Amino acid sequence: MTISTDGHQGLSHFSEADSVNVVNARMDAAAHPRLRQVMGVLVSHLHAFAKEVQLTQEEWDHAIQFLTATGQICTAERQEFILLSDTLGFSMLVDAINNRRPAGATENTVFGPFHVDGAPVREMGACISLDGKGDLCRYEGHVLDLDGNPIEGAVIDVWSDNADGFYDVQQPDIQPKWNNRGVFITGPDGKYDFVGIKPVSYPIPDDGPVGQMLGKLGRHPNRPAHIHFLVKAQGFETLVTHTFVGGDPYLDSDTVFGVKKSLIAPWNRVNDGPILWHSPFDFVLVPR
Amino acid sequence: MTISTDGHQGLSHFSEADSVNVVNARMDAAAHPRLRQVMGVLVSHLHAFAKEVQLTQEEWDHAIQFLTATGQICTAERQEFILLSDTLGFSMLVDAINNRRPAGATENTVFGPFHVDGAPVREMGACISLDGKGDLCRYEGHVLDLDGNPIEGAVIDVWSDNADGFYDVQQPDIQPKWNNRGVFITGPDGKYDFVGIKPVSYPIPDDGPVGQMLGKLGRHPNRPAHIHFLVKAQGFETLVTHTFVGGDPYLDSDTVFGVKKSLIAPWNRVNDGPILWHSPFDFVLVPR
Repeated sequence: MTISTDGHQGLSHFSEADSVNVVNARMDAAAHPRLRQVMGVLVSHLHAFAKEVQLTQEEWDHAIQFLTATGQICTAERQEFILLSDTLGFSMLVDAINNRRPAGATENTVFGPFHVDGAPVREMGACISLDGKGDLCRYEGHVLDLDGNPIEGAVIDVWSDNADGFYDVQQPDIQPKWNNRGVFITGPDGKYDFVGIKPVSYPIPDDGPVGQMLGKLGRHPNRPAHIHFLVKAQGFETLVTHTFVGGDPYLDSDTVFGVKKSLIAPWNRVNDGPILWHSPFDFVLVPR
Repeated sequence: MTISTDGHQGLSHFSEADSVNVVNARMDAAAHPRLRQVMGVLVSHLHAFAKEVQLTQEEWDHAIQFLTATGQICTAERQEFILLSDTLGFSMLVDAINNRRPAGATENTVFGPFHVDGAPVREMGACISLDGKGDLCRYEGHVLDLDGNPIEGAVIDVWSDNADGFYDVQQPDIQPKWNNRGVFITGPDGKYDFVGIKPVSYPIPDDGPVGQMLGKLGRHPNRPAHIHFLVKAQGFETLVTHTFVGGDPYLDSDTVFGVKKSLIAPWNRVNDGPILWHSPFDFVLVPR
């Protein structure tokens, strides 16, 4: 008695030519149509990638090792897969897809890993630099709607590195808590105004797999100097952005591709007591 | 004095429309042209994927968490990224790309994680089942070239699970060392002949992220019953393959897509003392 043999055809068995269809035909019982769609398109592009470059077994081995090492270096404080996504421009792409805005509105950029909820609300004009390091800068401007009207009650959450290139949460034993962070709420004129430092450029953590990848690609790990803004107002889309320090040497080569031309702010030299710089910038929000 | 502002154009800054070119323009200083090619095509397909499905921020978050968990469950004994590659048909695709063979030659399939170097060389006719479990089966056939001539000195390395669905290395405290493993070397007639068990189907490890993914896709984690063969002979391409037990219920839905129709072997019921099955199969090698 011969138990089996033949008659297995169509999409049941793997073939190089039909590999995508063979795999995706197995997803008919997926829990959600969206999952099936996303995974089907992912399989389609992953297979097309392997076919286009004729990926070797050795390269596949290397990729498996790279992905494993990337997962294993992750901790509560370090997210190497986000760095990988960032450095391949994937994070910026997802940000762009999900935050398309009309002309005149302030553009989004990546959120980054260093935001902390609950920063203290400060009076307009207050200084958020608590460690006495760096050049002081007055940040000033308005939160506006698309017609140029001021938005009252807009909540502006700001954060930047210190003059050594580290956020407070990266140096909890060195920097004062909430150093270079603060929340400001606009009045009827929509105006904001605070003092911080002129931020400095810094490298992303580059002692792991992503740093090695950047090295082999001939890329540096640096971000141009920037300050983060999270701006929320009732009835408007939330804005997640940075402003960048004009003149920074890494503006054209931000390792996470976060720079957009419209986000490069003016930096004017001033002589206002201890304040050496003035950076004006208006935030224009889109109605929800 | 205004330090910077304008003039940043072209590929320096990110845009959704031009995202692939912006990222790939940074790879001009890559250490090796092949790395640049592979990474460039990878970026191109990853970005096309995100654009095609309009990936949401929430889905991106989920992907980051999934990849991180996949890396973190890996140990010396468990390779979840290989499981991920296997269950998306990617491992079979890479195997196919790198092992194209002319008609008449035995097809390759995935190597799998359970091969062990150094299995004992046994005499033809020997039994490799050491734990007394399962139905005994006589495996028999020839190692041939494309013209049907026998290949002398071919080294046939075989391994299978036991009747409980586990390889010896998965149960080092339960199974005898080298259970269901052995190496056989052909004589001038190219013939091989040994006794093993009829292997059984088994699930891949499904208590991690890949198992969760399969569950959400409505897929089972099982592989149809099979026995592995690694066949080497001087002057010929190495063959990595399995033969599958005809009639297995998972032949049409192998969770790693390893089945090829030509690898489904006949399984004949026999009455040869304690031996209950006979599975004949010839291996046809391609000159190097």
